[in-house]
Amino acid sequence: MSPNDAYISAPREITTPAGPARDGQPAWNKQRGSSMPFHRYLPFEQEVEVVDLPDRTWPSKKITHAPQWCAVDLRDGNQALIDPMSPQRKHRMFDLLLKMGYKEIEVGFPSASQTDFNFVREIIEQNKIPDDVTIQVLVQAREHLIRRTFEACAGAKNVIVHFYNSTSKLQRRVVFRKDKAAIKKLATDAATLIKTIAADYPDTNWRWEYSPESYTGTELSFAKEVCDAVVDIMDATPEHPMIINLPSTVEMITPNIYADSIEWMHRNLEKRDSIILSLHPHNDRGTGVASAELAYLAGADRIEGCLFGNGERTGNVDLVTLGLNMLTQGVDPQIDFSDLPTIRETVEYCNQLRVPERHPYGGDLVFTAFSGSHQDAINKGLDALANEVRPGAINTEVSWDELRETTWEVPYLPIDPKDVGRDYEAVIRVNSQSGKGGVAYIMKTDHGINMPRAMQGEFSAVVQEVTDSEGGEVNSKNMWDIFATEYLDRTTPLEQVSASIKNAETPDADTTLNVDVIYNGEKKSITGTGNGPIAAYANALESLGIDFEVIEYSQQARTAGDDAEAACYVAADVNGSKIWGVGIAGSTTTASLRAMTSAVNRALA
Amino acid sequence: MSPNDAYISAPREITTPAGPARDGQPAWNKQRGSSMPFHRYLPFEQEVEVVDLPDRTWPSKKITHAPQWCAVDLRDGNQALIDPMSPQRKHRMFDLLLKMGYKEIEVGFPSASQTDFNFVREIIEQNKIPDDVTIQVLVQAREHLIRRTFEACAGAKNVIVHFYNSTSKLQRRVVFRKDKAAIKKLATDAATLIKTIAADYPDTNWRWEYSPESYTGTELSFAKEVCDAVVDIMDATPEHPMIINLPSTVEMITPNIYADSIEWMHRNLEKRDSIILSLHPHNDRGTGVASAELAYLAGADRIEGCLFGNGERTGNVDLVTLGLNMLTQGVDPQIDFSDLPTIRETVEYCNQLRVPERHPYGGDLVFTAFSGSHQDAINKGLDALANEVRPGAINTEVSWDELRETTWEVPYLPIDPKDVGRDYEAVIRVNSQSGKGGVAYIMKTDHGINMPRAMQGEFSAVVQEVTDSEGGEVNSKNMWDIFATEYLDRTTPLEQVSASIKNAETPDADTTLNVDVIYNGEKKSITGTGNGPIAAYANALESLGIDFEVIEYSQQARTAGDDAEAACYVAADVNGSKIWGVGIAGSTTTASLRAMTSAVNRALA
Repeated sequence: MSPNDAYISAPREITTPAGPARDGQPAWNKQRGSSMPFHRYLPFEQEVEVVDLPDRTWPSKKITHAPQWCAVDLRDGNQALIDPMSPQRKHRMFDLLLKMGYKEIEVGFPSASQTDFNFVREIIEQNKIPDDVTIQVLVQAREHLIRRTFEACAGAKNVIVHFYNSTSKLQRRVVFRKDKAAIKKLATDAATLIKTIAADYPDTNWRWEYSPESYTGTELSFAKEVCDAVVDIMDATPEHPMIINLPSTVEMITPNIYADSIEWMHRNLEKRDSIILSLHPHNDRGTGVASAELAYLAGADRIEGCLFGNGERTGNVDLVTLGLNMLTQGVDPQIDFSDLPTIRETVEYCNQLRVPERHPYGGDLVFTAFSGSHQDAINKGLDALANEVRPGAINTEVSWDELRETTWEVPYLPIDPKDVGRDYEAVIRVNSQSGKGGVAYIMKTDHGINMPRAMQGEFSAVVQEVTDSEGGEVNSKNMWDIFATEYLDRTTPLEQVSASIKNAETPDADTTLNVDVIYNGEKKSITGTGNGPIAAYANALESLGIDFEVIEYSQQARTAGDDAEAACYVAADVNGSKIWGVGIAGSTTTASLRAMTSAVNRALA
Repeated sequence: MSPNDAYISAPREITTPAGPARDGQPAWNKQRGSSMPFHRYLPFEQEVEVVDLPDRTWPSKKITHAPQWCAVDLRDGNQALIDPMSPQRKHRMFDLLLKMGYKEIEVGFPSASQTDFNFVREIIEQNKIPDDVTIQVLVQAREHLIRRTFEACAGAKNVIVHFYNSTSKLQRRVVFRKDKAAIKKLATDAATLIKTIAADYPDTNWRWEYSPESYTGTELSFAKEVCDAVVDIMDATPEHPMIINLPSTVEMITPNIYADSIEWMHRNLEKRDSIILSLHPHNDRGTGVASAELAYLAGADRIEGCLFGNGERTGNVDLVTLGLNMLTQGVDPQIDFSDLPTIRETVEYCNQLRVPERHPYGGDLVFTAFSGSHQDAINKGLDALANEVRPGAINTEVSWDELRETTWEVPYLPIDPKDVGRDYEAVIRVNSQSGKGGVAYIMKTDHGINMPRAMQGEFSAVVQEVTDSEGGEVNSKNMWDIFATEYLDRTTPLEQVSASIKNAETPDADTTLNVDVIYNGEKKSITGTGNGPIAAYANALESLGIDFEVIEYSQQARTAGDDAEAACYVAADVNGSKIWGVGIAGSTTTASLRAMTSAVNRALA
């Protein structure tokens, strides 16, 4: 549970911020200035620039269709792994991406790694690339690397050559020490060279992608200038557009600013109709998904990312979240996410990194509701769906396949877990924070115990007492044990040994009941009469000094069919205590008598 | 590595989407319609509603100061744990939040859990709550729960009573089956009751918070109506404002829509100047951080969340990410994050959940750059900072404490890891995707080997060969072993046994060198002369039939001080091969001769 030691430095003293309040801080805000070195960081508008776009249109737009997706798991994702994928893991990832429906797949950086080079050769030579799929390879804007890249791709049917150089203000200054003209020339020289070399490989349908790397750190006017120059050289046309990819290489500011920048480029790029405008968001500020969505609204056509957000540092934008976010809005992601557990398992195998518990859609805990009110609301939401399928039905009476015919609207579950191959049966767990909703749900679905509403509170208090004292959660099996101990297994002070009923001979005559019991350790035989076995047993109990009055009574079949067991619930006033009892038996009469004995034992315990 | 079995359903067939293209899909996009049931989901504007806000102002605003933070780890976070916090873990979390500087802390749901009730009593009775800290307790809008809540808080100095009821369109219909008036009455009745009961506890400074729960699923006009009514009852004034908390209980749509809704409420709430407008974003669509940031721009005053984003399902918004995002923009978060490793360790202990590897700021991998070009750029960025501190210096010559005097601008590292108590020394790791930048950095910082630039490519190719063939990453120790094997430890075909130098007696006279060697298994004694020991050894090697010409030569001290070892680097043309050799020794002359032997052995291997 403790983090990797290598990353723990000697603990500093965490000191409660005790600086001055900021100017204008309201009296109700007691926070104080910290000693965090915030003065070391420049606001984005001083570090790069912010374009003013008062007439931005993206905040009023809606996502109506899926973008062109490009999965970069085998390149950007792989490059960021502690243990990069073996050839076997690479093939497994490639197969998964194909099956899911990705048609553009960045397969590697063949000029930078022999493993990548070999993998590209293998999928080409073994005919693993379907005709409608385009592989993409990354290469820096340098001649020997470009030549090596073309060698890697020879013989492929469709290839996107993705070349890049960093254009950012900071990298121009500290890394390249070049002015804008020289940086632009790196890009245009590479473009010219790529066009020339491609002529030697006429059998491939080559396409081009250019990224002004570190775009988010680049002045927009310069990014536009470089991209326009590259587009010119590559002879892009509306029929054969090229990809201009504007990466949020490092997230530097809130996602609306990235969206503004994309809308600005969308409006200002010279040959916009010959360009496929692509996004490649990272997640340094935890807003990669938002950056992708808002910038897509702002005019982009295409999104590059990785399954479950693998990638350098905080990762690339997560293609699973983006796709399923669209699904929840009624938009076809054009990708098959129907078996998310298998997708996740494959990704975890390939990346050797776990998908975290709270990861949207895929995490272990995301279809779990612990809170009682949430559980109750989910249960009622499912009932409402069941009712649409079959009026009057509750959710356990309608199969999940039938439920899937309806529009999904259930509180706290933005998506039907079944739509991504996950199960709802396992999701409600009960801990000390849960209320009766979760307890009732598990007893009903897992154990066939459909408690009367008025009894749910009593039993959930029993469960809560256990969780409060023992801590942890109660699983389905534990809950049954608690239920049995509390209601079914008690034999003191009263144990019912056998009972014989003398049925009434006419409809309005009384029933007489003889019961052999052990009461406070003594064998006794008691007799009572009444208008039915319940009244007769209540009457018999009087001879033991027990005053028993039935308040509420219900019965249900625990399972379907002839051999169904009956579960009987009795709310009674026993010597002045109001209490529930439960009995289960093949015979409905026996179940009733047991429920009454259960109530007696609980009241007198 | 494999996900929890309980969540894996039987694998479905993942089938490559093979439906029709959408209307208007461009020819270059080969994606096809999937069989995902997108028709089951209503777009947000049909499920709830979208307010049109063409004159929204938030997209042009900037975050200039920290909000009022409220940490809800002990309530919303705790409620969502598989294993809720024990009293000990609760105290540990509370202490941490106090130390970090949080002044409003939601400490539990005392009416729903005995553990929470007891914890609230303990921190009150043991005087654990500083005078400037306000504890907050959650309670549903129901009388017996409200009474129990006041009992829990009796004797505390400052308390926010946070009451809520769900107002959403969906829950009104399927959970409560009540109309708007009845739902509003739940809230106003609770407000009235709370005001009445509070009068019995005059020694506490009571404050009020009301949440229209499931706000994101509520029509804005209705949310406003309920909130206005509650504010009226609670007699809020500008001097004693109450908190209106507008939770994104479930994220239902892109974060700009949440921001629009907050700006609408900010403008339309009746007594805005008597309200502290609060956010409580969850993360179902992976955009919790963006929702918080954009909605904060839209006019909110306060944000509720959890450390590292714990909370129901996909979690609450992450207070660490929000705070440090502000820091990177030069804004004081008013919270101490200076020892993030200890914060993380405490949170992992309390929640019994790991912070994932790629979690912003806190994850194991977020200050790691595997890619060669990133490593190179980071290195140059650090050099540029060093240069600002001391002109002409490179980063290893300037201490990190000194570096911290400068404004932080380093490619690919949005924050100085030292500012959150993390180390940069450990972050660059080398795998088959890394280039010379990372290799050079590790050799320099960990092993005192400052390779000439021209040699870096050669050695990194050697490292890459190992990583390509063996897979995995090379750690610092492995890298030294590779370096020693390649450059230092070779003794075939040439082993230098001893050497004696006859120094020149006058400055311009030649040096004569006698060296005993084993060459191809035979002991030999060779002699050479030249204008120094290097030239003399080159001359001596000729007698073995080795043509040795020095191309480049450099030397450095590996450590500071008198007993420093010298590292010598020689680029040579050896029988026509251009190759590097390295020698390390106490004497600079011995180091030079060893470097030449190294080059010979590498060339002739």
